[in-house]
Amino acid sequence: MSVNRARGMRDLLPEDMIPRLAVLDTVRAVFRRHGFDPLETPALERIETLTGKYGDEGSQLIFKVLKRGEAGTRGEVGLGLRYDLTVPLARVVAMHPNLPMPFKRYQIQPVWRADRPQRGRFREFTQCDVDIVGTTSRLAESECLNVVNAALSELGFDDFTIRLNDRRLLKAMAAAVGAEDREVPVIVALDKLDKAGRDGVRRELTGSIGLDDAAVDNLYAMLDGAPVPDMEAVEAELAAIRDNAAAMGTPPERIRIDRSLARGLDYYTGPVFETVLNDGSIGSVSGGGRYDGLVGMFSGREVPAVGVSLGIDRLLVLMAERDLLPKQSTGTQVWVTVFSQQTLSASLAAARAFREAGLACEVTMNRVGKIGKQLRDADRRGVRWAVVIGPDEASVGAIQLKDLRGDFKQTLPVAAAIAHVRAEG
Amino acid sequence: MSVNRARGMRDLLPEDMIPRLAVLDTVRAVFRRHGFDPLETPALERIETLTGKYGDEGSQLIFKVLKRGEAGTRGEVGLGLRYDLTVPLARVVAMHPNLPMPFKRYQIQPVWRADRPQRGRFREFTQCDVDIVGTTSRLAESECLNVVNAALSELGFDDFTIRLNDRRLLKAMAAAVGAEDREVPVIVALDKLDKAGRDGVRRELTGSIGLDDAAVDNLYAMLDGAPVPDMEAVEAELAAIRDNAAAMGTPPERIRIDRSLARGLDYYTGPVFETVLNDGSIGSVSGGGRYDGLVGMFSGREVPAVGVSLGIDRLLVLMAERDLLPKQSTGTQVWVTVFSQQTLSASLAAARAFREAGLACEVTMNRVGKIGKQLRDADRRGVRWAVVIGPDEASVGAIQLKDLRGDFKQTLPVAAAIAHVRAEG
Repeated sequence: MSVNRARGMRDLLPEDMIPRLAVLDTVRAVFRRHGFDPLETPALERIETLTGKYGDEGSQLIFKVLKRGEAGTRGEVGLGLRYDLTVPLARVVAMHPNLPMPFKRYQIQPVWRADRPQRGRFREFTQCDVDIVGTTSRLAESECLNVVNAALSELGFDDFTIRLNDRRLLKAMAAAVGAEDREVPVIVALDKLDKAGRDGVRRELTGSIGLDDAAVDNLYAMLDGAPVPDMEAVEAELAAIRDNAAAMGTPPERIRIDRSLARGLDYYTGPVFETVLNDGSIGSVSGGGRYDGLVGMFSGREVPAVGVSLGIDRLLVLMAERDLLPKQSTGTQVWVTVFSQQTLSASLAAARAFREAGLACEVTMNRVGKIGKQLRDADRRGVRWAVVIGPDEASVGAIQLKDLRGDFKQTLPVAAAIAHVRAEG
Repeated sequence: MSVNRARGMRDLLPEDMIPRLAVLDTVRAVFRRHGFDPLETPALERIETLTGKYGDEGSQLIFKVLKRGEAGTRGEVGLGLRYDLTVPLARVVAMHPNLPMPFKRYQIQPVWRADRPQRGRFREFTQCDVDIVGTTSRLAESECLNVVNAALSELGFDDFTIRLNDRRLLKAMAAAVGAEDREVPVIVALDKLDKAGRDGVRRELTGSIGLDDAAVDNLYAMLDGAPVPDMEAVEAELAAIRDNAAAMGTPPERIRIDRSLARGLDYYTGPVFETVLNDGSIGSVSGGGRYDGLVGMFSGREVPAVGVSLGIDRLLVLMAERDLLPKQSTGTQVWVTVFSQQTLSASLAAARAFREAGLACEVTMNRVGKIGKQLRDADRRGVRWAVVIGPDEASVGAIQLKDLRGDFKQTLPVAAAIAHVRAEG
């Protein structure tokens, strides 16, 4: 009989989950400290909520779900799985017109994309987002950058750059070369500079998009710093976003204003940003920007918003490569062996005492009586402390505590054993 | 333009999420202390993995998902959303034959059921499960009961009863009245005793199931304690499960051996249990049992297993009714106002200091300059501490700290303000 996961999915075993939960705790603490409150939305949205928000390519990647009650192997689609956390947020804001503004929320939940299978890329992955809804203040952008800086720093990274640009600059560049009617294709082409290089992007710009070589030269000159007409105010905004982020705690050398940054998603309207590691080892680990039109698509009421997303799955891969993660397949600290049926209740009482003291404790279930094998089981699992209670120990109300990674082995009252384990970690 | 959630779904706003996260933290700590390690599985499973595991009724409630690449409004089903956490665990165990046994995992994730919409019942809800795979030791059952007792106790409940029974007893009862060929329908009917009462269940048993009234009388007598033939060993096991749970810390009066408990799910094979509040205010808040055949359905290899699930959504409703939950719509502790553009950098520096000290801190983005309105905003959100930095404070490098719930108002260095907020909470 064949048994398998769905394609492109993965299971997170304890050795994956233990470091993951630690990283998520760190990220959540950074979000909280910056005044973001938690929100969760359902995995399933009405299909109309999702379509038309992510461009043509994105829409194809939405997992489609049948309406309730559809039986058999074919049926009518009524729902879709969450593709990101931003569109659901916009829906929530549209449905709750009385939320106090600015509404600062964080959201840590999985999203699903029916991407082509690829090494290290999964169809379910976790997004960690902060968004600030209801303000046009560029302090909101600075705070997004500072959240990214604080989170990455606390996770142990110091060699990253936050690239910062503005969609309005890109549009003005397109207009300056006479392509105001082809803004979106031009921006989408520029977004590929990292992967396709300037020659590759030139082929696209002069090909299907129809620019001439002089226009492309002009575009590339603006990317390299030539002035973009009428964009002084936008440039000043970007500088202020960087400076205020610096006042919040982000070293300004980590923020690079970079006219070539486009970001793919359709809904951005102003500043955009993404974070890359300086060694170029991986794509972006964080991305975001301002999307002042998205909430209005749901409610008719314009509500400005800006946010940023941390790619926790990529960060975990990088942290593993850099040895920044604990290697642990169990959180269990103490293993209480069982010598015989006669001493079982003494073992259970000891386990109770360890647990009530807040220590993670396991009691032998298999191999009762075979103390040597029980100790080997505990050691193989990576549990440091073992407890043995034979008839002698049980008769005097004591336990034997053994350090499986060292020489310590002593018979003592359970309270003293708890104190010892606590002191040694 | 209409905007709405998918039917039967809900959003969890900050005032819902803040108590929810606190409850989940408590539950997770109890699981860890009992030696359970974390596991997560993907939301999507191959549809074949899910079908045939939950009975006819359950199978109808699985949300069906189209294969990747299916476009349009109709298409072919290849996937299903997780219906519980037990079947995915069984699949994981079948796929990892080398997991060290017993494998004790906890899993806290949402599940989806396309139930008929009902007040207070949602199509996405969170399950908190512990399972012990790879042991036939009845200590595993005791540990499940003790986990439930510890979690409920720590959440503030003391008036609950864990009902304990065994599927083998129910089967023996069916056999004793000559219905061994109708075991499952008899058990399913008995499972409705709570809702339908003895008369209602009698109608079902004598109707479609075809027992006569004498057989039903006999069944009911066994429910009330008349001996069930050849079940002495099973009865002794149940008593041992209760006694060992007591040694682990569960007051034995909270465990009631109860022959009328059936539990609906198809896959249970031995002891079953569920937890109810003594005031009968709500259905069960926890349920579980032994399912020794489920892993074998995937791998052909028999692997015994037992587990229990906590209904965190129901518990949260009960805790709200009993005033056991914090009423908070924000976690923010300190609100730093902005007096003017000139003092902005001083406000940002103060926010940085509070955040680096681990306090949750917000900086004004809207209404810059209008201090009165900023303070009102902070107060309305439920933030206790406000910081004002005017030109006078900025010039001496101090801040004014104000308790929005009391009289305290003092100009002091930021380090002293941090110490004050920490001391006062």
